[in-house]
Amino acid sequence: MVKNIPPKQNMLYVDYQNALSDKIGLANGISKRSFLGELKKNQPSLKTIFRSKNKEEYAFLDLPDDQATLRKIKAWAKGQEKNRWENIILLGIGGSALGAIAVRKALTGHCQNLKNRPRFFIIDNIDPDPIAELLSVADPVKSLFIVISKSGGTTEPLALYSIFREKLEEKKVKNLKKHFVFITGPQKNPLRTLAKKEGFDLFDVPPKIGGRFSVLSAVGLLPAVLMKVDTSALLKGAKKMRDLIKKIHPEENPALILACLQYLLDKKKEKGMTVLMPYSSRLFRMGDWYRQLLAESIGKKSTVGPTPITALGTTDQHSQLQLYCEGPANKWFIFFRVLKHKNEIKLGSHLPKELDFLNHKKLNQIIDAALQGTSESLTKNKRPNVTIEIPTIDAESLGMLFMLFEIQIALLGLMYKVNAFSQPGVEEGKKITKKLLSK
Amino acid sequence: MVKNIPPKQNMLYVDYQNALSDKIGLANGISKRSFLGELKKNQPSLKTIFRSKNKEEYAFLDLPDDQATLRKIKAWAKGQEKNRWENIILLGIGGSALGAIAVRKALTGHCQNLKNRPRFFIIDNIDPDPIAELLSVADPVKSLFIVISKSGGTTEPLALYSIFREKLEEKKVKNLKKHFVFITGPQKNPLRTLAKKEGFDLFDVPPKIGGRFSVLSAVGLLPAVLMKVDTSALLKGAKKMRDLIKKIHPEENPALILACLQYLLDKKKEKGMTVLMPYSSRLFRMGDWYRQLLAESIGKKSTVGPTPITALGTTDQHSQLQLYCEGPANKWFIFFRVLKHKNEIKLGSHLPKELDFLNHKKLNQIIDAALQGTSESLTKNKRPNVTIEIPTIDAESLGMLFMLFEIQIALLGLMYKVNAFSQPGVEEGKKITKKLLSK
Repeated sequence: MVKNIPPKQNMLYVDYQNALSDKIGLANGISKRSFLGELKKNQPSLKTIFRSKNKEEYAFLDLPDDQATLRKIKAWAKGQEKNRWENIILLGIGGSALGAIAVRKALTGHCQNLKNRPRFFIIDNIDPDPIAELLSVADPVKSLFIVISKSGGTTEPLALYSIFREKLEEKKVKNLKKHFVFITGPQKNPLRTLAKKEGFDLFDVPPKIGGRFSVLSAVGLLPAVLMKVDTSALLKGAKKMRDLIKKIHPEENPALILACLQYLLDKKKEKGMTVLMPYSSRLFRMGDWYRQLLAESIGKKSTVGPTPITALGTTDQHSQLQLYCEGPANKWFIFFRVLKHKNEIKLGSHLPKELDFLNHKKLNQIIDAALQGTSESLTKNKRPNVTIEIPTIDAESLGMLFMLFEIQIALLGLMYKVNAFSQPGVEEGKKITKKLLSK
Repeated sequence: MVKNIPPKQNMLYVDYQNALSDKIGLANGISKRSFLGELKKNQPSLKTIFRSKNKEEYAFLDLPDDQATLRKIKAWAKGQEKNRWENIILLGIGGSALGAIAVRKALTGHCQNLKNRPRFFIIDNIDPDPIAELLSVADPVKSLFIVISKSGGTTEPLALYSIFREKLEEKKVKNLKKHFVFITGPQKNPLRTLAKKEGFDLFDVPPKIGGRFSVLSAVGLLPAVLMKVDTSALLKGAKKMRDLIKKIHPEENPALILACLQYLLDKKKEKGMTVLMPYSSRLFRMGDWYRQLLAESIGKKSTVGPTPITALGTTDQHSQLQLYCEGPANKWFIFFRVLKHKNEIKLGSHLPKELDFLNHKKLNQIIDAALQGTSESLTKNKRPNVTIEIPTIDAESLGMLFMLFEIQIALLGLMYKVNAFSQPGVEEGKKITKKLLSK
């Protein structure tokens, strides 16, 4: 009998019964036997990851223990209060933005900028149109800019820095350095040079932490502190998940389970696409964070690399479900099920006969029933699907999710035999771009 | 020699050289000969679509001519001005929301709700959290609600209607009917019944127009008029594109070219994923509209159906490009290149030596060079990619894009031999959900 994490209070639970051959047949589902075999086979990889001599490679595991950095950030943020910023504007891209976006949406929601100050904007593109739009509503003079680049030389955040700095100079701002805080890697780099020259506040990304594994470093924590997120709980959740994964039995180990599901469904059942479909708007952008993590870490060597796809329940039932149920059987699905939403909202009694089963129901029940409907319907169509149950969306559960997926990806690197921490394929395009602009 | 639409002023141009075997080899690219053969073979399908006796099936082609509906909507919207709404809130999902979202982002941008009244919200989910957040910033008493459901029985918009109506009743609003306008199909259905009973204003979706083909009907036009979009230009662009596609030579026909590329790359070169990657934030949500159109129309019969994926340049260069360049060669790419962005923004001269090629550049140049870098780098890696050049983002070019893709999909229905206008696969899940809620 395949065991699983019991749905304990305040812990995530991975329900993968609908990915097994018992439910969906051997052509699309994994047999219990081969699943148990895979768990056993990869248990040593888990040991490898946690072995202390490999600490450098898996340095992200230590981030939840770095209370000193968090204290430093909190003290610095406290010092910012006197500036009464109207806007905080993060300039970063990829791993320097996706963690903060995921945290922002999950923990503060979608409408904060319409009611609270400071407003928080995350700019992760160099399209001139949204920048112009932002400038039409946010006065740089009343804004703090967080500039993030792990390498210190990323085109996008540095170009954006130059633009906003130019705007501040145009407005004859005297104390320029008040407006900027930089976050970058420990090596000598353009951003670091600039920070020193100008006297900007500076936070480090610890050595050996890759951009996409940096959400629990200053890269994610500094923005989160400014958003007034409970960052201590964020780290606590990550620590709790790490410690659980380190010691729990393979058959109950959520990171090992998710890694083995991904590997077997991709390699043995030809499910080359991984659809992450939260039934929660707040967790939707977590999908974008995971999308980078999976794609950039494992997409290598022309032959391997599942393609991550983000979808949203129930929204995408009305857009993608037809393809998911009746199109080619080349995908598997991960649902996020939130057991307790932050809010409860109840319908009235206005709906006519054909829809009177909805009257007086809570939205919470309806979205949950829709998830079950989708999951069962995929199962009937023999499409493997897994549900991650999340007790509630808070900083602690978000920290758990970050750590769970980071360890899953570290495991997948070993299983797929690729370097999960490099991204050699993006250099070529950068060179061409630079050449074009240097003409 | 394969011809193409010349990049005329105010017309779209499809550059597909990087999808041909000359550039990327025969294993991944299409030979000119087979491409010309495919264009010729499918020319009759184009005739089928435009044949007047098939008018019902392809009714969406006539929408740009329906000036009467547009006039009616404009007159109605004029009458709304006296209500001085603080908020306009669209309740719809799938085809009832994605067109309006695409129009909203493309033509009014991202920051409108921070500066202008009425604010415009589109709610296309039943997650209780964002609804509660919306209620914390938008008073229903000062809001107009547009409720859209083609079938008239879609759970999500009707549940949302019930919630907001309940809120209005709680606040003892007397003139309830002032707050609602409904848009639904012509048949008898719950939404229509409700509208009649309550005396709500009502607009029709014309017969035979499927949800995902309805953006140029009242479904897309009414919200667009309220957003103050130039809807006449939207229809004009669609009409211009339709008339061009109807008469232009196959080798220059953008709909036929895009349909043949999709079909050949999927069926002959195993590119089962279609990545739509605009280098424009304003066009990003257009990708979600297209994602439904392609997935729901062609994803049928367990064996056919390309999987649409949306990505954004340059943002996703730092998330997905590694996978796109070095992962499995199972995708093809459609870029949107905007020749003239609405805004121009120039960098200062603050960047240090390593990045001084960026000093004084315009963002417009940088994003364009990044697109070229990505396209060339994919081409070097033998990944087929196509660039759609768009003169500028305005209502007319958006109308062109809508019509171009709708006709492409109609063609693909015939080429893949599926009914592009049905979605049988989503019924099962709905039944299960209803059963669960009726207990």
